[in-house]
Amino acid sequence: MRAAYYIGNKNFQIEPGNAVPPGAGEVRIDVAYCGICGTDLHVYHGAMDRRVGDHRIIGHEMSGVVGALGDGITSLAVGERVVVRPLGSCGECPACKAGHDHICHKLKFLGLDSDGAMQTSWTVPAALVHRVGPSMDLRHAALVEPVAVACHDVRRGRVSPGEDVLVVGFGPIGMLVALVARHTGANVRVAEVNEDRSRIAATLGFPVCNPQTTSSEALLETTGGKGFDVVFEVAGVQQATDLAVAVAAARGRVVMVAIHSKPAQIDLFRFFWREVELIGARVYRPEDFDEAIHLLGDGTIPANLIITETVDLDYIADAFAGAHKGMKTILAIGEQS
Amino acid sequence: MRAAYYIGNKNFQIEPGNAVPPGAGEVRIDVAYCGICGTDLHVYHGAMDRRVGDHRIIGHEMSGVVGALGDGITSLAVGERVVVRPLGSCGECPACKAGHDHICHKLKFLGLDSDGAMQTSWTVPAALVHRVGPSMDLRHAALVEPVAVACHDVRRGRVSPGEDVLVVGFGPIGMLVALVARHTGANVRVAEVNEDRSRIAATLGFPVCNPQTTSSEALLETTGGKGFDVVFEVAGVQQATDLAVAVAAARGRVVMVAIHSKPAQIDLFRFFWREVELIGARVYRPEDFDEAIHLLGDGTIPANLIITETVDLDYIADAFAGAHKGMKTILAIGEQS
Repeated sequence: MRAAYYIGNKNFQIEPGNAVPPGAGEVRIDVAYCGICGTDLHVYHGAMDRRVGDHRIIGHEMSGVVGALGDGITSLAVGERVVVRPLGSCGECPACKAGHDHICHKLKFLGLDSDGAMQTSWTVPAALVHRVGPSMDLRHAALVEPVAVACHDVRRGRVSPGEDVLVVGFGPIGMLVALVARHTGANVRVAEVNEDRSRIAATLGFPVCNPQTTSSEALLETTGGKGFDVVFEVAGVQQATDLAVAVAAARGRVVMVAIHSKPAQIDLFRFFWREVELIGARVYRPEDFDEAIHLLGDGTIPANLIITETVDLDYIADAFAGAHKGMKTILAIGEQS
Repeated sequence: MRAAYYIGNKNFQIEPGNAVPPGAGEVRIDVAYCGICGTDLHVYHGAMDRRVGDHRIIGHEMSGVVGALGDGITSLAVGERVVVRPLGSCGECPACKAGHDHICHKLKFLGLDSDGAMQTSWTVPAALVHRVGPSMDLRHAALVEPVAVACHDVRRGRVSPGEDVLVVGFGPIGMLVALVARHTGANVRVAEVNEDRSRIAATLGFPVCNPQTTSSEALLETTGGKGFDVVFEVAGVQQATDLAVAVAAARGRVVMVAIHSKPAQIDLFRFFWREVELIGARVYRPEDFDEAIHLLGDGTIPANLIITETVDLDYIADAFAGAHKGMKTILAIGEQS
């Protein structure tokens, strides 16, 4: 087998190795594809060195085929197409006990806190494996994980049919949130400053505005003055947060999808005035993976439009260097059956 | 009849006048008592002059007896003890149409945007009147409005039995929120910096800490590290907001009861990490008034402990000057049958 190790300072090293035989309760997966996530780009830029170290196989937006089963695994069969929900929870902390194991106090993220999917052979707990079915294109299946993020965000926002939704920031996750929210039956509008991304939004049929040239009053007018029932903040900058709060309807929900590493200014008066809610969202739960597999399978998510580049693992350095240019870059890892 | 007019700069003027006969759909109330609210104190300090002008009868935490009925009123009878839900909504804005008329886009607050209850005779729409029953002490009934605020806050926080609740700030509203949350079956703890207020909290049986000398880690430990399922921020300062967010549990809800006139710094990373929610709350809905009347009637709310002073309307200036000292100062307005 071969694995790409992040070794610090924007560098990767491809190394040969031995496949890890699955232990009891584990599965060994022949990895087919692995997408480059925003978090992987953070690692690449050195922002997470303390967490990942300097010899780590990263990657978690993967797809593959079951290669071997550990003792006691009857729910999966060798040869099945699968993806992995890359969350390790402790089962004992208050969050786990309350049924929120996806936000376990000691959550381990596979591909950051332990080795991930940018290797041809990946051995993981079987409980994290989801079947995608025999007919799903494995390249498309590599999008299950980010689509599950969007499903979770839309679920957290309690989006319902007919509601007015604004997605602020149309990167890969913003795009998926917009698609999932529209599938739920909401009227989805997009605010994006980047022209290329705005064009993609328009191509997909979303009304789109540039918040640098469109006032929040004008945005409110698109809802007849009501405001948006749900706003997804997927840009991660102060202006986006300000906009999201300013255009929320009475009892509107602002879902904080972007990760703000620093505190932001929030207009709390607006929360009082309109009884606005701010809702945090993190990763996903098993049902979000199930929904994502469904939405990719039935074509709701136009996978070919999202995957802008597929690059062989040997060219991982080039793939990371150019990943910011398109929507989603996918690494071809091993056998693409 | 007599009325107290706020005339600016911490001054009131008592003026005689003529009772306004109730029009169709209206009721004239002989006002018995009217509490001094934090908002009234803001008016007194000149902070709301632009909104109230310099000749306004303020006051809304009132109780009284129906004195006369306008045409078409069959739901009330002269002599019944009542309180008023002091909200005027337009019925036509998006919030009203969505069923959220208490946060109407053009909400008029009686006692601020139109004349209020610090007069012996008050004529209001009958739709805003709630009966308190023949056995309720009218002094106690003057607390219905602030108790309804607390009922609304607890409802917004979706507090359920057995949950861990923290109330940050134990002024009159914080105290009522703590009492209502405890009545719901929650384990309620209080954080308060003022020694007098801390003593009252302890007297009422609430575990209380001073957040200036107790760390958020120590507070978390009181919940076994889980954090609080619901935190009510009733202090309105940056430190309180920081504390509320820091000690919220996974999927914890921070209810923003305090009114922050300026944007505050919010640790959005924590919202991501623990899927925290921030929930805005404003005034109340009719069901909150009904619940408040019930809780005052059955003694859940110890009215005598909350009302620290009852002052005749003639001494309104003294009442306002000293209102910050106790929990709740009540003005005796007219006949106290």
